[in-house]
Amino acid sequence: TVEHEAGLAARAWAWLLACVAAAWGRVDAFARKVWRIGADDPRKVVHGLKVGLSLALVSVFYYTRPLYDGVGGAAMWAIMTVVVVFEYTVGGGVYKSFNRAVATASAGVLALGVHWVASKSGEFEPYILTGSLFLLAAAATFSRFIPTVKARFDYGVTIFILTYSLVAVSGYRVDQLATLAQQRVSTIAIGIFMCLAVSVLICPVWAGQELHLLTTRNMDKLASSLEACVEDYFAQATTATTTKSTKSDGYKCVLNSKASEDAQANLARWEPAHGRFGFRHPYGQYCKIGAAMRACAYCVEALSTCAGAEAQAPEHVKRLLRDACARVAARCARVLGEASRSVGAMESSRALDFAVAEMNTAVHELQGDMRSLPSSMLAVKMAEEASLMDTMAVFTVASLLVEVSARVE
Amino acid sequence: TVEHEAGLAARAWAWLLACVAAAWGRVDAFARKVWRIGADDPRKVVHGLKVGLSLALVSVFYYTRPLYDGVGGAAMWAIMTVVVVFEYTVGGGVYKSFNRAVATASAGVLALGVHWVASKSGEFEPYILTGSLFLLAAAATFSRFIPTVKARFDYGVTIFILTYSLVAVSGYRVDQLATLAQQRVSTIAIGIFMCLAVSVLICPVWAGQELHLLTTRNMDKLASSLEACVEDYFAQATTATTTKSTKSDGYKCVLNSKASEDAQANLARWEPAHGRFGFRHPYGQYCKIGAAMRACAYCVEALSTCAGAEAQAPEHVKRLLRDACARVAARCARVLGEASRSVGAMESSRALDFAVAEMNTAVHELQGDMRSLPSSMLAVKMAEEASLMDTMAVFTVASLLVEVSARVE
Repeated sequence: TVEHEAGLAARAWAWLLACVAAAWGRVDAFARKVWRIGADDPRKVVHGLKVGLSLALVSVFYYTRPLYDGVGGAAMWAIMTVVVVFEYTVGGGVYKSFNRAVATASAGVLALGVHWVASKSGEFEPYILTGSLFLLAAAATFSRFIPTVKARFDYGVTIFILTYSLVAVSGYRVDQLATLAQQRVSTIAIGIFMCLAVSVLICPVWAGQELHLLTTRNMDKLASSLEACVEDYFAQATTATTTKSTKSDGYKCVLNSKASEDAQANLARWEPAHGRFGFRHPYGQYCKIGAAMRACAYCVEALSTCAGAEAQAPEHVKRLLRDACARVAARCARVLGEASRSVGAMESSRALDFAVAEMNTAVHELQGDMRSLPSSMLAVKMAEEASLMDTMAVFTVASLLVEVSARVE
Repeated sequence: TVEHEAGLAARAWAWLLACVAAAWGRVDAFARKVWRIGADDPRKVVHGLKVGLSLALVSVFYYTRPLYDGVGGAAMWAIMTVVVVFEYTVGGGVYKSFNRAVATASAGVLALGVHWVASKSGEFEPYILTGSLFLLAAAATFSRFIPTVKARFDYGVTIFILTYSLVAVSGYRVDQLATLAQQRVSTIAIGIFMCLAVSVLICPVWAGQELHLLTTRNMDKLASSLEACVEDYFAQATTATTTKSTKSDGYKCVLNSKASEDAQANLARWEPAHGRFGFRHPYGQYCKIGAAMRACAYCVEALSTCAGAEAQAPEHVKRLLRDACARVAARCARVLGEASRSVGAMESSRALDFAVAEMNTAVHELQGDMRSLPSSMLAVKMAEEASLMDTMAVFTVASLLVEVSARVE
């Protein structure tokens, strides 16, 4: 049994080692993942450092005697403001700062007014205060379900309720309400100023620019995946089972880009003029271009489903249409590429109009080819592709028109 | 000139009246919109009242002497917690409460520890505190970019930074740090308790149930819009310009449902067992069903593009395939309807398997009809439709398998 126990101990030891190794492996994998996030986009690391820096700057107010005496114990409101208001993009920061400042000020004034009325009423004071709190909180919370309020002032409504309840309720016990309010306003101002200064001056991340890059990048991806899908379709005919090229999957991130586009366009509206982005830069147009691109992506999705379908057109039919199809795909991709460049450079280029005209010619050629085909039943697959190309072209042109109008404005 | 002035005055008066009327009209339209939001979903109004109620309840702590003496001036933390933690769904409330409680506790303990170390070091105290604040804030902010942290603990990270900086910084000036921490913890507990009690006991809105309803509703919409699209396609042949039926647009809200589905599934995971939803209800499966439904919606999109295309197949070809197509569409819709019912009732029904088998038969019939067609070139449109139906069927089956596996688990 000694041997048995020794064996048991050895097994237990081995099991422990395996556990440690597994845990270490998991930690290592996680660390690698985190490292990759930072290495892929160093601005995320910089963002973290910026938050740390502005907090450290604000905490200086607390440590240095003269500044502390100036704002009193309310210095923590400055810290709170920094933590809550600092966002990744400048637009996000401005949105939250504006909402916080306006909501605090308006709720504070309203609460002081109600408090004054309530204090005149004597013993009914708590009832008036609680009643007004109940009504205002209910109304403000409900207003968050209104789409416009939700998009622009969601954070402001929270802060409005918060400030109103704090001032109205603490007014019952605290006497120097005006001093309290004044301190709060000044500390919030300090926090907001610090936030905006750090986020604008040190490696700023503009929501408008992000949106701009996202749009052009998505267009490029769409162009390359369109070409790759058509290639896949014809390649499959020669080799029985080809692995789908990864390039053709690029359209997938266009499919679900709506939420992030809307959010960024929303934040970008709050940003001041910067670089080539004017104050009233037509960010709404980016959303429209995005919608047109998604329509394109749906077509590419259908196309790639065809490429992956079991029933395929016979080889000789494919060969007949291959050139025409490839030409249409190439021209479509070129139009998208031109559009991406033109959006990127923010000007309507002559090359774009030219590319659109070329694409239309290619589409007409393809339609002609299809009509002259021997009407074998299985040519249908090709026709499907052609009609998709057609819609493709229509949508591309639509997106271009939108884009051009955006530049003209 | 008197007449002229009188005319001017009259015109100014008319202008003023028009302005007032326009402003009134705008206010009226806005009021109607708000009223409709409330009337469409009375739970939103109830939510507003719930927030008001819990704030009023918490403010009672402030007004009644014995309770006030118990928690001290820190009562405002309870109010703050209620305002910040109260969410529309129970899952959202639990998520925020848990994050707030855990983050506050852990950050508080950590800050007290660092504070103790710093206080031993004498004059370096501010430097140690600021340095640790900078490092922790930077690390915590960066951690928000990690997807898992973002999905589950985004709010917690904010609160962690907030609490750490408040305790670490105010520790420099305040002496009874332990009392402060204890008060903060107890008031936050009061706030959280109040929130959860009100949101669970009064007309609770469960994120899991919302997700469930959203999924079944989307399936029904998809089914009806699939049928409507096929009908549109054939109706267009008889009457030249038909207005598209609004029913066929139902698939559009499926296209962009990803963001809301993901968010609700995320919140639903935090909810305790309720009704027919167990503690470890497979909410992830809803996201998979949602993805399958989106794939279906892409097909319907392509289909409705075909119905709206200029080039149409000639009448006699359409007539040949009309019955088979209509049958496939009806069977597909029926499968979706059955699936919706089966998801709704949370059981895998025999009727569903039966409907799938019927749909497959109809698809095969359609494929047979297509092969026996006189191979006129313009029949291509029909074939396109058929192949889409085919993919449709494949995706539907995939979604069903996912769904059935969800029920078996």
